[in-house]
Amino acid sequence: MFEEKKAEWLRIAESLKPQLRRETVRPMAGMPDHALAENESVILDFGNHFVGRLTLKLSSQGSHPDAPVWLAVRFCENARELNETLDGYAGWISKGWVQQEQAHIDVLPAALALPRRYAFRFVKIDVLALSSKYRLVLEDAFAEAVTAADDSAVSKLTGDERDIAMDRVALRTLRNCMQDFFEDGPKRDRRLWLGDLRLQALTNSVTYRNFDLVRRCLYLFAYAADGEGRIPACLFTEPQVEGDDTYMFDYSLFFIPTLLQYADASADRETARDLLPLALHQLMLAEKQFDPETQLIRDCERLGWCFVDWALALNKQFCAQAIWIYCAEAALQLKADPALEERIALRREAARKHWYDPERHLFLSGAQRQVSWASQVWAVLSGIAEGTDAAACLDAAALCPDAVPMVTPYMMHHYAEALCRVGRKAQALKVIRDYWGAMVDQGADTYWELFNPADPDESPYGSRVVNSYCHAWSCTPAWFLRSGILEENT
Amino acid sequence: MFEEKKAEWLRIAESLKPQLRRETVRPMAGMPDHALAENESVILDFGNHFVGRLTLKLSSQGSHPDAPVWLAVRFCENARELNETLDGYAGWISKGWVQQEQAHIDVLPAALALPRRYAFRFVKIDVLALSSKYRLVLEDAFAEAVTAADDSAVSKLTGDERDIAMDRVALRTLRNCMQDFFEDGPKRDRRLWLGDLRLQALTNSVTYRNFDLVRRCLYLFAYAADGEGRIPACLFTEPQVEGDDTYMFDYSLFFIPTLLQYADASADRETARDLLPLALHQLMLAEKQFDPETQLIRDCERLGWCFVDWALALNKQFCAQAIWIYCAEAALQLKADPALEERIALRREAARKHWYDPERHLFLSGAQRQVSWASQVWAVLSGIAEGTDAAACLDAAALCPDAVPMVTPYMMHHYAEALCRVGRKAQALKVIRDYWGAMVDQGADTYWELFNPADPDESPYGSRVVNSYCHAWSCTPAWFLRSGILEENT
Repeated sequence: MFEEKKAEWLRIAESLKPQLRRETVRPMAGMPDHALAENESVILDFGNHFVGRLTLKLSSQGSHPDAPVWLAVRFCENARELNETLDGYAGWISKGWVQQEQAHIDVLPAALALPRRYAFRFVKIDVLALSSKYRLVLEDAFAEAVTAADDSAVSKLTGDERDIAMDRVALRTLRNCMQDFFEDGPKRDRRLWLGDLRLQALTNSVTYRNFDLVRRCLYLFAYAADGEGRIPACLFTEPQVEGDDTYMFDYSLFFIPTLLQYADASADRETARDLLPLALHQLMLAEKQFDPETQLIRDCERLGWCFVDWALALNKQFCAQAIWIYCAEAALQLKADPALEERIALRREAARKHWYDPERHLFLSGAQRQVSWASQVWAVLSGIAEGTDAAACLDAAALCPDAVPMVTPYMMHHYAEALCRVGRKAQALKVIRDYWGAMVDQGADTYWELFNPADPDESPYGSRVVNSYCHAWSCTPAWFLRSGILEENT
Repeated sequence: MFEEKKAEWLRIAESLKPQLRRETVRPMAGMPDHALAENESVILDFGNHFVGRLTLKLSSQGSHPDAPVWLAVRFCENARELNETLDGYAGWISKGWVQQEQAHIDVLPAALALPRRYAFRFVKIDVLALSSKYRLVLEDAFAEAVTAADDSAVSKLTGDERDIAMDRVALRTLRNCMQDFFEDGPKRDRRLWLGDLRLQALTNSVTYRNFDLVRRCLYLFAYAADGEGRIPACLFTEPQVEGDDTYMFDYSLFFIPTLLQYADASADRETARDLLPLALHQLMLAEKQFDPETQLIRDCERLGWCFVDWALALNKQFCAQAIWIYCAEAALQLKADPALEERIALRREAARKHWYDPERHLFLSGAQRQVSWASQVWAVLSGIAEGTDAAACLDAAALCPDAVPMVTPYMMHHYAEALCRVGRKAQALKVIRDYWGAMVDQGADTYWELFNPADPDESPYGSRVVNSYCHAWSCTPAWFLRSGILEENT
């Protein structure tokens, strides 16, 4: 499918590859005031979160070095990472993501250019070995920080100081994920994910307004669609553009609202026209997941078949139905289609009929009729919940202690958006302040991939050491605070 | 001293910097026949000892790699090193010498060029991390091996097969230490030491005959002499030529016989003339160590003031006297000097009178009148022991269980040479076969810095992991076997 378009789509994507902005930054604190001996450590604090390459200028004090310097260098996005180690690591995400290097330096003075790009605020340097005849002098440390974002494109926010701080952290998060493409996280996975892209593009539209980068990413996904025209959940750009073999029901469909939002914000109708058939094709591919009798989506055993949130216990059946409806609505805005309109109505109705518990005011999911926050949120965003039921189901979730909780800023975004949708704008702002504001209170320079205010040390990966502390899907406070969606009269 | 000569001496040294010979080598065994998973290891066996840079060609099998490869790569000169680790390392030589690297590879396929020059036969690769979605394919592994030695310059040795094997290992040792200069060991310390150079130059004269490299090293030492004209024990060439601040009584003096041996072997009288004043100056500097009354050298508390052997318990006083005489004799051969001839005679006589125990037939050393093998060996080589006393003292050491033993191949060389000097050529050959031959029997491709046949695991450094298994001063079996010194009629 679409194979005849692929070469052109790739050409467009590559033509939009950004020239990264480069800035030389130095630590604001931590440069040692003395020459270092074996087993000494220093922690450089660059004062903010950066993405880039580090160079250490090294020399020696004492006799001519008669043995190599052996250093360990660790990059931490966040002060809490400084105390974490890989000792006894039992997480299931590759520990290869932990940003640590070792280097031997045979000749001093030397400029040690660390070999990779890192995401960091802190750099910890351990002197693993020297000889007793000399000490190591750290003459200079500097990073070339990179981003595709233009800080000058963003207007100043005024108002509440804590809101301004939340916005600043959101901007930093988005900015540092804006590289050759919209990365999900510059520490990990450094990949283009559709779920992240959707929220990045949204926030970008009221901040950096780098629409070329959004357009590039849309075309990258178009190119990466598989033989059946299915858009993968994420893709790689190195060594060449290639879709991952991971597909998620919701992520493939989110190509549609992402395309719509891009076209509306950028006024680039041409791209919308060019990619519309591929977008609509995602709806078509989703059809086989539906039971034509009941118009209900079939549940699926495969973990991660539909993402919704980073909650292993969450049943996704209801949310998948809702997300299909949400995306089909976006398709209608891209192109009127009475048959689709009718199908949406049928599926809303079926969902209501099958999954709504009118006594508890809750939307249920799966054979076990599971109650979750996610189901209520997507009931609202999809319009399955309508009228007073919409606000009621959100309230009901709060009163249901067994409701599967929300885990990620990504899911919290949808919750806050749902609150806005039902007119609860002050409550939405409170949610944002309580949730993202708590990360700011914890000293975040960028928002984290995962955050549980009740347990800031939580990780779904079995170890915090692989957590990502600058994660694209967490950047939306800037959108809430800048788009006008929180204003009472909108 | 000699400051007006220094620029020219450095110019000559640098003009003689060799063009290294380069050879691409690949493992003879150990290339994996399957793609590697996390925690797998491979051991590549290059079939012989090499010095050079390694490149690994890597690709992946399975899904597109979704996390970096994290590798540890360890270079071992010797199979015994494969089982050693730095865990709990308590040696006093810098553990920075252990040839191990870590690398993260973000994009596959990749050619990973390890960052340093290594000395190795074996390369152990540990896959520290991958993701579960792919495996690592080691497509190719090759090293660019370097040496300044020209293998084709060496004639074929005939005769006893084990002798031929001993010679082969000696040649390999010397060859792999022949780089930009005569290194003491290509793993560690990778430096130009006078004690090593003397034996390398000797062996070179009957094997590779790269006299330019010897001449270069003589001029490097000349340039590196300090403000008083004292030649350091060793020197560095990077980032620029600089003498180490380590001075040893014997090593400074050994400049003289090294210069003589070079001039004789190469017939380059010009260099001998040019450097003669500096050589004679070393004798002059040694004068302040002598008591003018007794003509005996004064002992010194400082550990390592005079090297002789790697034996901490060894008293060096007698050996220092003997080495001064040995070197003064070399000076006489470079330039007749009746006053010096007289002084040598006086000091031989003083040494005999003061330190010879005629009942035990042993030369003693120090206030404690210590018996050591080293003292007997140097008594012979210096001519302090004369006539039948010479062979007798060597025999007496063998009968004295308390004699401080010999530790290094460097000292064993002098023992074997002393045996030749007293006409015990068959015994010298037996010593060489028993000592160096035992390393060959242990599978050595190159001779070790340190070897105790009774305890091959011994290390004076507190840990074997920093031992050097290709060490210049151990290369002299090729000299013994090729120079004719072992032949009965010489």
